[in-house]
Amino acid sequence: MEFFWAHGFRGAGMAELVGHLGIGRQSLYATFGSKRGLYLRAIDHYRRTRLSQVLALLDRPGPPLEHVRKAVRFFEKLALDQGMRGCFVANALLEVGDGDEELRAFLQDTLQLLEGAYRKALTAARKRGDLPADRSPRALARALTNASIGLAVTGRLGQGKAVVADVYAGTLAMLDSGTPAAVADSGGDPG
Amino acid sequence: MEFFWAHGFRGAGMAELVGHLGIGRQSLYATFGSKRGLYLRAIDHYRRTRLSQVLALLDRPGPPLEHVRKAVRFFEKLALDQGMRGCFVANALLEVGDGDEELRAFLQDTLQLLEGAYRKALTAARKRGDLPADRSPRALARALTNASIGLAVTGRLGQGKAVVADVYAGTLAMLDSGTPAAVADSGGDPG
Repeated sequence: MEFFWAHGFRGAGMAELVGHLGIGRQSLYATFGSKRGLYLRAIDHYRRTRLSQVLALLDRPGPPLEHVRKAVRFFEKLALDQGMRGCFVANALLEVGDGDEELRAFLQDTLQLLEGAYRKALTAARKRGDLPADRSPRALARALTNASIGLAVTGRLGQGKAVVADVYAGTLAMLDSGTPAAVADSGGDPG
Repeated sequence: MEFFWAHGFRGAGMAELVGHLGIGRQSLYATFGSKRGLYLRAIDHYRRTRLSQVLALLDRPGPPLEHVRKAVRFFEKLALDQGMRGCFVANALLEVGDGDEELRAFLQDTLQLLEGAYRKALTAARKRGDLPADRSPRALARALTNASIGLAVTGRLGQGKAVVADVYAGTLAMLDSGTPAAVADSGGDPG
């Protein structure tokens, strides 16, 4: 997985991949069928490990809006990843776009897991009165999923901490109802 | 440009590229130096055409918050692009991440143009009282730039109109101050 993460699907040469895994080309084909098969397995591994952490976080007992903030913070951290590799799933979005219907459906399904978890937490928050009654958990969950992808993608750019912190604060502004200082300027900068 | 857009940088074979452009390989190298040189020129072309449209939109006289909404809508349309090609700049983010410092700086600069234009419009909106005084134009501009990238990226997934409309509505919720029906549910769906 680490290898694909750094090099992408098309960037990962078969020879280097085989060398990285320390297995023969033949056993790779025997086990995964193809480089693409291995790639799908790597995305699945990401889903069952990293993404599952975020989903579990969103499903915990306690104040749901806090969990939502922490989940977005997970993607903020991803955007600050020193290796600038970005997010494995987001990278995959762009690696194999055209024609590969199975991969597209798999990635869409992966994003829907995140969207569903955001939405469940936001619905609970609205029931508790932590989210204004006029806000749509569905729309906000989709906007947060989109923002999470944005953060995951810009991780590759190596943006500074201040920029990413602003993205976090600005994005979470969609959750509040204009309470003072919700997205106050972080410094003396006049806008 | 269209060719890179559909195939990406690494996916664009030199032979196909030469065939697509209808020029010889030698004249391609003579004009652009390399495939990468041509790729950088293509991104620059995108900046001077498509992105410039958005920047001009944000700089128009009239209610600045309306312009901001229209600019985000531009990216909403990109996400609904039938060809599912996503955004050229966002694609480039993932195509060539590692090591290519010149491309990274060029892409970061491109995103800063968008962020700056959002920020100028949001600052004007706050001066007019259209944006709550406690909101940071800088943080919101960065969050909107991030959301725009998210939309540009998910274009490759071929999301449905309803999803993209929700992303738009949810994202713009960061601009309002909890006024009723700002991000109301779009249907009878309970959350």
